[in-house]
Amino acid sequence: MNDKAIRPAAYIFDVFGTVVDWRSSVARFATAFFAARDITIDGPAFADFWRGLYVPAMARIRSGNRGYVPLDQLHFENLLECLENFGLQSELTEEECWALNAAWENLDPWPDCVPGLHALKKQAIIAPCSNGSIALMTRLARYGGLPWDCILGAEIAQNYKPEAVVYHACCNALRLSPDQVMMVAAHNDDLEAAQAAGLKTAFIARPTERGPGQSRDLSATGNWDRVIGSMDQLA
Amino acid sequence: MNDKAIRPAAYIFDVFGTVVDWRSSVARFATAFFAARDITIDGPAFADFWRGLYVPAMARIRSGNRGYVPLDQLHFENLLECLENFGLQSELTEEECWALNAAWENLDPWPDCVPGLHALKKQAIIAPCSNGSIALMTRLARYGGLPWDCILGAEIAQNYKPEAVVYHACCNALRLSPDQVMMVAAHNDDLEAAQAAGLKTAFIARPTERGPGQSRDLSATGNWDRVIGSMDQLA
Repeated sequence: MNDKAIRPAAYIFDVFGTVVDWRSSVARFATAFFAARDITIDGPAFADFWRGLYVPAMARIRSGNRGYVPLDQLHFENLLECLENFGLQSELTEEECWALNAAWENLDPWPDCVPGLHALKKQAIIAPCSNGSIALMTRLARYGGLPWDCILGAEIAQNYKPEAVVYHACCNALRLSPDQVMMVAAHNDDLEAAQAAGLKTAFIARPTERGPGQSRDLSATGNWDRVIGSMDQLA
Repeated sequence: MNDKAIRPAAYIFDVFGTVVDWRSSVARFATAFFAARDITIDGPAFADFWRGLYVPAMARIRSGNRGYVPLDQLHFENLLECLENFGLQSELTEEECWALNAAWENLDPWPDCVPGLHALKKQAIIAPCSNGSIALMTRLARYGGLPWDCILGAEIAQNYKPEAVVYHACCNALRLSPDQVMMVAAHNDDLEAAQAAGLKTAFIARPTERGPGQSRDLSATGNWDRVIGSMDQLA
């Protein structure tokens, strides 16, 4: 269906899990944040619980039951629930909660990403197509040295992946048709939605994204245009 | 009113004229484009006429008489009128017109901009706040090596400067208040609107932007927070 011989004019990327290691980074950030207040937490468990509230929070917006709010706001609301779960709800002021919320702006890229993105940028436009906001993605790029050409994703579509409008908004913003754009992700469901929206697809496995017990997305489960082992293979 | 001692968290930039030399670049691009078809044009006159249609084209959108369309589309429509003015309307196919429209994606930065922006990026977020679209600004950044952190401006606001909503949309997208953001421009009217919207302001003179006969914006005419001689003075 897609002409694999034609190089994409742009590559757009899922970010959490695909480009950056959110679990280790949030665990480390939260552990240090509480340690500075003489509180010991189980960092990975805290990161997992916080992240676990992400999909249900977006679902209310995707279904139209709530207007679009940026992911920063959802992360903040989810943090309050997370703090309550860990019995920490009375430990932090609102301002401190926002400071802890910045954990999501301080995520380490997987080691192959920065060199791979620099190489790819010489050939094509590169941009995130993440559910993260422009504010979040901008700060994350500065933290990790991600050389994006522009920030695309949920905010320009005012909706969340895997709604087709998000992939289409990215293509439209670049004045490209979907078949000129390749979506890169470590999640088969993201690629399934992108492929259904007419984009080309590339899968990269991140088998430790969810920690040692990861059971899904260990390999490509769809008919993707590319399956790569590291980002530099896209260039 | 503004606390000049507090450094902005982000700097946003007018681009056409402030960061890039649109007149010389469009003149050169168009001259070469027609020369390849054995047609001689007056490049600077062509650039001036084309650019002269820019403000009236946006005015229809700013007044609400037309929905938002990206500047690429306005440039294209204005090009058709420009071709007619120069008696060239039957010389180009629609595809060729779009190729010529890409003149606006191939504009040389003023010599101080690339080093100045790299230095400033180490201290604060930098982004265009231009009437150019995401597609245009992205390609222009790649052409000129402009190291933006993200692309802001008219498209995320779905309106055109100097409407206040454009400046506010840029601040909101960065999760910053207007007084944390400095607008940098070579045009006093742009800064007037940005200041009215609550942003900090910096003026930089570009006395040859409009060619040898330039009569406006030769110096700062408002009470701006900064007046700089080159971009590296922002850092």
